[in-house]
Amino acid sequence: MANYYAMTRQELEEEYQKEYAHFNACKEQNLNLNMARGKPSNDQLDLVINMLRTLNDAQACVSDDIDVRNYGELEGMPCARAYWADMLDCKPSQTFVGGVSSLNLMFDVISRAYTHGLLHSPKPWCKEDKIKFLCPSPGYDRHFRITEFFGIEMITVAMTDEGPNMDQVEEYVQDPCVKGIWCVPKYSNPDGIVYSETTIQRFANLKPAAPDFAIMWDNAYCVHEFRGEYKPFPDIIRLCEQAGNPDMVYEFASTSKITFPGSGICVLACSEENIAYFSKLFSVQMISNDKVNQLRHVLYLKDKEHTLKIMQKHAKILRPKFKVVSESLHRMIQPCGFGRWNEPKGGYFVSLYTMPGTAKRALALCKEAGVTMTPAGATYPYGIDPDDSNIRIAPSLPPVEELEKAMDVFCTCLKIAAIEKLLK
Amino acid sequence: MANYYAMTRQELEEEYQKEYAHFNACKEQNLNLNMARGKPSNDQLDLVINMLRTLNDAQACVSDDIDVRNYGELEGMPCARAYWADMLDCKPSQTFVGGVSSLNLMFDVISRAYTHGLLHSPKPWCKEDKIKFLCPSPGYDRHFRITEFFGIEMITVAMTDEGPNMDQVEEYVQDPCVKGIWCVPKYSNPDGIVYSETTIQRFANLKPAAPDFAIMWDNAYCVHEFRGEYKPFPDIIRLCEQAGNPDMVYEFASTSKITFPGSGICVLACSEENIAYFSKLFSVQMISNDKVNQLRHVLYLKDKEHTLKIMQKHAKILRPKFKVVSESLHRMIQPCGFGRWNEPKGGYFVSLYTMPGTAKRALALCKEAGVTMTPAGATYPYGIDPDDSNIRIAPSLPPVEELEKAMDVFCTCLKIAAIEKLLK
Repeated sequence: MANYYAMTRQELEEEYQKEYAHFNACKEQNLNLNMARGKPSNDQLDLVINMLRTLNDAQACVSDDIDVRNYGELEGMPCARAYWADMLDCKPSQTFVGGVSSLNLMFDVISRAYTHGLLHSPKPWCKEDKIKFLCPSPGYDRHFRITEFFGIEMITVAMTDEGPNMDQVEEYVQDPCVKGIWCVPKYSNPDGIVYSETTIQRFANLKPAAPDFAIMWDNAYCVHEFRGEYKPFPDIIRLCEQAGNPDMVYEFASTSKITFPGSGICVLACSEENIAYFSKLFSVQMISNDKVNQLRHVLYLKDKEHTLKIMQKHAKILRPKFKVVSESLHRMIQPCGFGRWNEPKGGYFVSLYTMPGTAKRALALCKEAGVTMTPAGATYPYGIDPDDSNIRIAPSLPPVEELEKAMDVFCTCLKIAAIEKLLK
Repeated sequence: MANYYAMTRQELEEEYQKEYAHFNACKEQNLNLNMARGKPSNDQLDLVINMLRTLNDAQACVSDDIDVRNYGELEGMPCARAYWADMLDCKPSQTFVGGVSSLNLMFDVISRAYTHGLLHSPKPWCKEDKIKFLCPSPGYDRHFRITEFFGIEMITVAMTDEGPNMDQVEEYVQDPCVKGIWCVPKYSNPDGIVYSETTIQRFANLKPAAPDFAIMWDNAYCVHEFRGEYKPFPDIIRLCEQAGNPDMVYEFASTSKITFPGSGICVLACSEENIAYFSKLFSVQMISNDKVNQLRHVLYLKDKEHTLKIMQKHAKILRPKFKVVSESLHRMIQPCGFGRWNEPKGGYFVSLYTMPGTAKRALALCKEAGVTMTPAGATYPYGIDPDDSNIRIAPSLPPVEELEKAMDVFCTCLKIAAIEKLLK
């Protein structure tokens, strides 16, 4: 095996025959493997099964003199607000504890901005002629889908090793139509980049033309290290406050990858003024979120320190899977002279940049061989990767042996697509 | 004690002195009683406490080969969809199982109609010049708040013993700006009226000018009899289908008053086309609802038959409370010659029509004496009762002895306000 770029046409054709034969052999196995979504594995779910046993009698249902079994406490149980404040290093009064989905909270913030406006909006976004949003890319497809859903024009911002290209961001926010930006500041989806202190400070000190500019700070992987120690992270709410922008940031987090995905609790953290504003809006749609589940989580997770101990157990399960991805790529792709990828210390993804112009074809081949991946392009606004290169690998769900099989198929498909491109 | 209308001025003044003395005596007790909201009592919560113990190991978390602990199944667990289909007499494929709040589902339907339109909308409601909604009144204040929130003009429709005045409804729907109607068809909030078969058939056979006219059918009290047997109720979805209006109705229900308020499961039931349309819209905001809680509920509640047995236990707790309300009103108000009220067989409210022009004053007095009631006017659009007469009594929360005290204060306040009015 050698660098594809150095091969003769004949050598490439021979390599193609060899790889395609292997591809066909894989196909015959009728595989059904999935590396599409950041889903925890069964081992991880079993790890936290005791959570289901933590709240099972009437006396345990009372906390701070509040019976979680009845209506009330729109902003969340005091103990749940304190838990999230501990996790995110902000104040309990700066938290609104939601239901099972932080995505739903993000959607509701954008949806309410659209129908009613944010705290400092001159008018609802639906009454504006044009609304734009900055989308550091590659990024999270579900973020982009929300802005697209409301007809918001998405502007791609490049990613650097320190987070979004802040020169671009600072320039774009001069435009009053630019109303916000999507961020995953720690172990970004999919690149696994941790925003640097400088980047974070530049975010806090933005001077956007729009008075209602919103930093959508999706801190989805705030305690999700799988290699090395927990990395403390600045409290963006305080930094924004210190920079004179107290109401500019909306932070989100959830226990989806701590306890049970889709059955956890989530949080919106922002200034007290924003909490008051959104509590008023949210009071129209609900009486309260699931306080039984909030208390269940707090009783089980206790606090940040204890949560970090649980995260170390998750890490132990995740680490070997990320190792399989890394080793597979090193062994099968690196010698071919194309492709680059990250080696994250946390989060749920490996972001691979394969030979430009071949990502779509490679994933079509994967599908043919029974390996499901996040669609090519999904990590860019409107699902269009201008280079047709980035592929998000989500290795958490399959057991290690299945993952090895899946990576073998995946790398084969990458190679076939690359050779096809070179032979064109 | 005699009919106030037959009293001389002097007799009224004497009666006033007597009642006011009693009011002052009540005030001195520093009461803190609440008949404001349809909150179940602690006894009712204790009744279903075993639900918290029904799902506590990994094996139990799998149903229909789906592990409820992971992402997926946007429309809900198959077993939960089957449960609601049994409850509402519709098909599982006509159900979308939501989170803890049917109010939130109703909000989302209206919100999405506003931003994107319903299945047959020519355009999103926010792009229409004018949108109107029919509001049978007295009705549920939280329904009215949703339509008001989106700037939808609300038109009051009178209630009859058989449900909304259908002559009015049939006339109003000729207006293409009229896009929907709020209904609580069984044990209406607050009147406790059960829509008659004729009313329901007239609903199903409406011929509205708006192609996207929406019947918001909030079947909140579908199995909530507290006196007598369960009363079967027609499946509005099938009736609409038979009438050639398959997509006109959106039905809602929840377990908020079956298991735990704010921690239950809820459902949107409608045509399969509507389910497909809304699943697509909802997929932007969430991956799935809380399936752990869905399975927990199905394991505990089992099916409609078993649920009805649990409802009989709730009924046993609720019955004496409604009896206190009825007897208090009979004893203290009826002889005075003003006021009329319902004697519901289900639901959560007694609807009292006190002397016109005195409801606000009576409830201000209640507040002064430490008894919290739903604000006067809340049962009408914009919080304005043109007669200042209707008061919603919610007797479920307080224990019987507290309720007796609260009703004593309440009736005293009604009388004082009435005499003041007569003496003016």
